[in-house]
Amino acid sequence: MKLNDSPHKRLNILTNEWVLVSPHRNKRPWQGKQEDSVVEQRKNYDEQCYLCPGNTRNGGEQNEEYTSTFVFNNDFAALLPTTADQTRYEEGLLLAEAETGECRVICFSPDHSLTMAEMSVPALEEVVATWKAQFEELAEKPSVNNVQIFENKGAIMGCSNPHPHGQIWAQNSIPLEIQKRTETQQTYFQKHGRSLLSQYLKQEISENKRIVTKNDHFVALVPFWAVWPYEIMIIPLRHFSSIAEMDQSEQQSFAMILKEVTVRYDNLFQTSFPYSAGMQQRPTDGEKYEGWHFHYSFYPPLLRSATVKKFMVGYEMFANPQRDITAETAVETLASLPTQHYKLTQ
Amino acid sequence: MKLNDSPHKRLNILTNEWVLVSPHRNKRPWQGKQEDSVVEQRKNYDEQCYLCPGNTRNGGEQNEEYTSTFVFNNDFAALLPTTADQTRYEEGLLLAEAETGECRVICFSPDHSLTMAEMSVPALEEVVATWKAQFEELAEKPSVNNVQIFENKGAIMGCSNPHPHGQIWAQNSIPLEIQKRTETQQTYFQKHGRSLLSQYLKQEISENKRIVTKNDHFVALVPFWAVWPYEIMIIPLRHFSSIAEMDQSEQQSFAMILKEVTVRYDNLFQTSFPYSAGMQQRPTDGEKYEGWHFHYSFYPPLLRSATVKKFMVGYEMFANPQRDITAETAVETLASLPTQHYKLTQ
Ligand SMILES: O=P(O)(O)O[C@H]1O[C@H](CO)[C@@H](O)[C@H](O)[C@H]1O
Ligand SMILES: O=P(O)(O)O[C@H]1O[C@H](CO)[C@@H](O)[C@H](O)[C@H]1O
Repeated sequence: MKLNDSPHKRLNILTNEWVLVSPHRNKRPWQGKQEDSVVEQRKNYDEQCYLCPGNTRNGGEQNEEYTSTFVFNNDFAALLPTTADQTRYEEGLLLAEAETGECRVICFSPDHSLTMAEMSVPALEEVVATWKAQFEELAEKPSVNNVQIFENKGAIMGCSNPHPHGQIWAQNSIPLEIQKRTETQQTYFQKHGRSLLSQYLKQEISENKRIVTKNDHFVALVPFWAVWPYEIMIIPLRHFSSIAEMDQSEQQSFAMILKEVTVRYDNLFQTSFPYSAGMQQRPTDGEKYEGWHFHYSFYPPLLRSATVKKFMVGYEMFANPQRDITAETAVETLASLPTQHYKLTQ
Repeated sequence: MKLNDSPHKRLNILTNEWVLVSPHRNKRPWQGKQEDSVVEQRKNYDEQCYLCPGNTRNGGEQNEEYTSTFVFNNDFAALLPTTADQTRYEEGLLLAEAETGECRVICFSPDHSLTMAEMSVPALEEVVATWKAQFEELAEKPSVNNVQIFENKGAIMGCSNPHPHGQIWAQNSIPLEIQKRTETQQTYFQKHGRSLLSQYLKQEISENKRIVTKNDHFVALVPFWAVWPYEIMIIPLRHFSSIAEMDQSEQQSFAMILKEVTVRYDNLFQTSFPYSAGMQQRPTDGEKYEGWHFHYSFYPPLLRSATVKKFMVGYEMFANPQRDITAETAVETLASLPTQHYKLTQ
């Protein structure tokens, strides 16, 4: 079967779910919604921004005069450390359970104007170190069984403030996507004695068809089963299950590859590239997760230009994920992009 | 446990997946993206529209001078009836399979200016009859094992043309969401000898807490496990597995409730309400699906106003679906809305 020709489906080995691929469909004319492509010149400090150093937030608290990263509790958290009552709701067919947790915000830099793509590698290393420290601290809490670290970037990804920042939602339950990835990875490990992603990486490196870039400790690739048009997954060469296990030189490599991936993204459509990115790692409930292999994924919505995105709507919501270009086409484009940020060459 | 107070999770009995509910979170200030609220006056006929009667489409074909509904093959279909080669791709860990099918477009009305909410009940009955005929025709094809009928409405739901229309994607594989709903419903039926949704309806009718409206044959409710802010599910009182089994008076009732739900939606924020809607019914692979109970769901993105939507991003993509208001709060609002379209009262 030629993967670049006709409609087919591909298996996601981490979730055991299929994605429908329509290689030819990207050619259709687009008369629908155009996103705004904002080429804004942002100030280094914005007095209106509730994330800038020293400013007062909506909840009334004042930010530190921070100079590197800065973490605080989300003033409008979706999760709260305690709930009024811990009982279960069970009525006939209906079932609900109390959920506890906490939501934190991490400012990546005091500089309001930056994004990861424009931050220095040492500054990104500080972000990585902060993620690690936060994960370690939260993982220790007996009531926290999962720590989800993520970033929503760009207004079309629901990000309400352009100041460079991400979030952490730590909670009592293990979320659905983590459950799926736990099952597949544990099953593989029990059967083969090595991690599923080590084996996958080995195959991708030898095929050399879907790799965007690699460095000493990490590989960035478009997974065979990618759903978002320019989805990228960063996988460490060494098998470890969470950021807590990342050593110094891996942290540096991780910062470097984060920089490179985000620069390539900005260069793709010469725009500040929107995405949601998320760290995928083992739950923190104290169980041993030998099969879990840390990874970090970018789900970016843009499809054809800075203003035309892929909509995951009707068919995708009611039936099945579907994409309009192949992973191999996407990687060809991504791998050919310059690694210097386009703004620096203008 | 009080469902309207603290964060909790609820089980979706049709998918066996949990949704995180944060009842208090809707209060946070919103400084992020505002959608355009387009109050357009559309013409009844638009010579630029490729869906209007008699006009020429992008692919070069000319539309019939239709006066009711009109169905044609999507000129840029994601699925094609035949593929170059039918072989499977299996390389180490990687697996892909050819997929065949067809994509059709259904114009709901020749009138470019209308939406379901503004169409007459008899005109909506014609839409229902067309869906039924299409389903029956496609279900008969040996290569078609699933028929997904859906509508994307509004630019923010990826709809590229405001002319009232929906789509059908018929295909060889059974999509993920249908698989999940098949498993839960078949399991329940085998155990209890009646459909899961009959039992659920019985409970919802007796609790009377989440019902938006009902008529002779259908109930519209906000499901206990709703994910989208104002999600609504339409369920027939009688247990049948597909639109093929809907009798004449049920078709009329269905058209009436479609009208009422879409009118209430438009009235909610006094705007042409965007959504994706989908028909959920048994696969068409010839198996007996005794447990399947037909339903039709609306997934609308708007959260707080015509311009502020709920973003399903970072946490939702990497961890778990999450919502900011409860089903009970949503239904209170939806049930209190007038059933006459706001444009008619201005
Ligand atoms: O077929 P259309 O209207 O061009 O496309 C729309 O609906 C499809 C089915 O949900 C999606 O795959 C597309 O992303 C969306 O833009
Ligand atoms: O927490 P924020 O940035 O206000 O909110 C954003 O990210 C959250 C987590 O992905 C989502 O639930 C919200 O819908 C989105 O707007």
